[in-house]
Amino acid sequence: VAVGPGDDAAVVGDGWVLSTDLSVEGVHFRREWITDEEIGFRAATAALSDLAAMAAEPVGLLVSMAYLPGGAVDAEAVQRGVQAAAAAVGASILGGDVSRSPGPLVLDVTVVGWTAAPVLRSGANPGDALWVTGCLGRSAAAVSLWRAGGTPAPRLRSAFARPTARVAVARALAGSGVPTAMVDLSDGLAGDAGHLAAAGGVRVIVETARLPVDAPDEATPGSPTPLDAALHGGEDYELLFTAAPGAVEAWLQAAEPGVALTRIGHVEAGEGVWAATADGSLAPLSGGFDHLGASP
Amino acid sequence: VAVGPGDDAAVVGDGWVLSTDLSVEGVHFRREWITDEEIGFRAATAALSDLAAMAAEPVGLLVSMAYLPGGAVDAEAVQRGVQAAAAAVGASILGGDVSRSPGPLVLDVTVVGWTAAPVLRSGANPGDALWVTGCLGRSAAAVSLWRAGGTPAPRLRSAFARPTARVAVARALAGSGVPTAMVDLSDGLAGDAGHLAAAGGVRVIVETARLPVDAPDEATPGSPTPLDAALHGGEDYELLFTAAPGAVEAWLQAAEPGVALTRIGHVEAGEGVWAATADGSLAPLSGGFDHLGASP
Repeated sequence: VAVGPGDDAAVVGDGWVLSTDLSVEGVHFRREWITDEEIGFRAATAALSDLAAMAAEPVGLLVSMAYLPGGAVDAEAVQRGVQAAAAAVGASILGGDVSRSPGPLVLDVTVVGWTAAPVLRSGANPGDALWVTGCLGRSAAAVSLWRAGGTPAPRLRSAFARPTARVAVARALAGSGVPTAMVDLSDGLAGDAGHLAAAGGVRVIVETARLPVDAPDEATPGSPTPLDAALHGGEDYELLFTAAPGAVEAWLQAAEPGVALTRIGHVEAGEGVWAATADGSLAPLSGGFDHLGASP
Repeated sequence: VAVGPGDDAAVVGDGWVLSTDLSVEGVHFRREWITDEEIGFRAATAALSDLAAMAAEPVGLLVSMAYLPGGAVDAEAVQRGVQAAAAAVGASILGGDVSRSPGPLVLDVTVVGWTAAPVLRSGANPGDALWVTGCLGRSAAAVSLWRAGGTPAPRLRSAFARPTARVAVARALAGSGVPTAMVDLSDGLAGDAGHLAAAGGVRVIVETARLPVDAPDEATPGSPTPLDAALHGGEDYELLFTAAPGAVEAWLQAAEPGVALTRIGHVEAGEGVWAATADGSLAPLSGGFDHLGASP
């Protein structure tokens, strides 16, 4: 066992990377919000995102599913969604288990991948730049709208229902030795940046004005602002990583990342996660994400 | 991917063996029957038994658990049980996931092991002998007694609550090249022998008078006979394997298997599973095990 519990995934042998991710009806999703196929797709993507965070090449998935046969769940549609998410990153279904259950639909997806050089949470150095892929907060915005009885715009809905595991950009960056530390954004930027800070023994500074957030389409009473959704919303499945100053800019001269990369802060000596506002003041940022509030 | 879905476990790379096993409250167990620690122990053992069936050395476990926090389940006790089952075979906890759930306790245990030479379900040859480890039917007898309102004797109770994954004997047998095909008995002898027959393209003959069954302690109205419990009861987690005639007897001259090995039949050309009675007549055996009937 090369890497045990505490990172995005475990590593055994010469580079086999393993992670598992639960999706529970009423906690991680509601069946009124998305289709059964999307339930499978996002459950698998959430697990595959942990392989991306280690810069591992996905190999296969084990899919366990507990549900009430003869009830409302279309088990084959769920499996099709898992299969589609696996196929999107070149992985295959290795096996799994199915059980009847009197309770909510529960999916547990275990992923296995391989890499010669896993990128861990612990490698950030003072002076490194802090980068993120994609756009943050859309998934939380969709949930917020659903909970208020609204209908999210397509780009918000699909951020929740059909997220992308950032395997390709992770493999490309790591193949060039760019990331010093990496984590996927499943619990919200504030909480996941805290994992990088704690594992690396460093302070992470987030320049909030630089965050790639979405403009709100609709003002929903009680909804988080786009900035709050990005910082605390979770389940974006983008990658947060650190790199030596200038390393990403140099890499971008020749690379095609396929997704936006945004520098959103830096790493210092110290501890914790701090938000730096445009006027230069610092405030501590903390996590506290409790999934999407899909439960009533 | 060297071995995909359809065997006891999948094999990737040069011999990494992966399997996953669900345990659902009210389907696989009832919390009135066994302790929370035993729930964890047997869930982990059920998964580890699939590694034994491949003759793989256990390396680690990923443990996913969905339950209602603040409810009756002692999550730490469940985890202690998983840890004890892992320690019993020299494996460590690699990671996992925990989610709240409004439904029943759901445990999903994924195991990873390694072997240079996995023993598959498909290798049985006509002429091979059919062997089984341990004693069959105790687990089903315990469930039958619980369902009837009785209290199983300690050896029946522990067959259900604290089964043994037959890793040591599987590794020793396979290290000497003895088994030609192997499966673990999770669905009952009749059903699991059917897996060997189907995968190997052979007929499996079970000499029912030779089965290592328990004498009944108590006559419970409606309970299966010891023979029926052995054939159809499931969740014994013993190993069923085939070997060339005389191979096991020769191996036993020098080995210490640590568990009883009983020759219970043989393999012929043909298909399906057949029960041979003492007078030599044959009758088809079929599976149809639906877990332990833990649901009302």
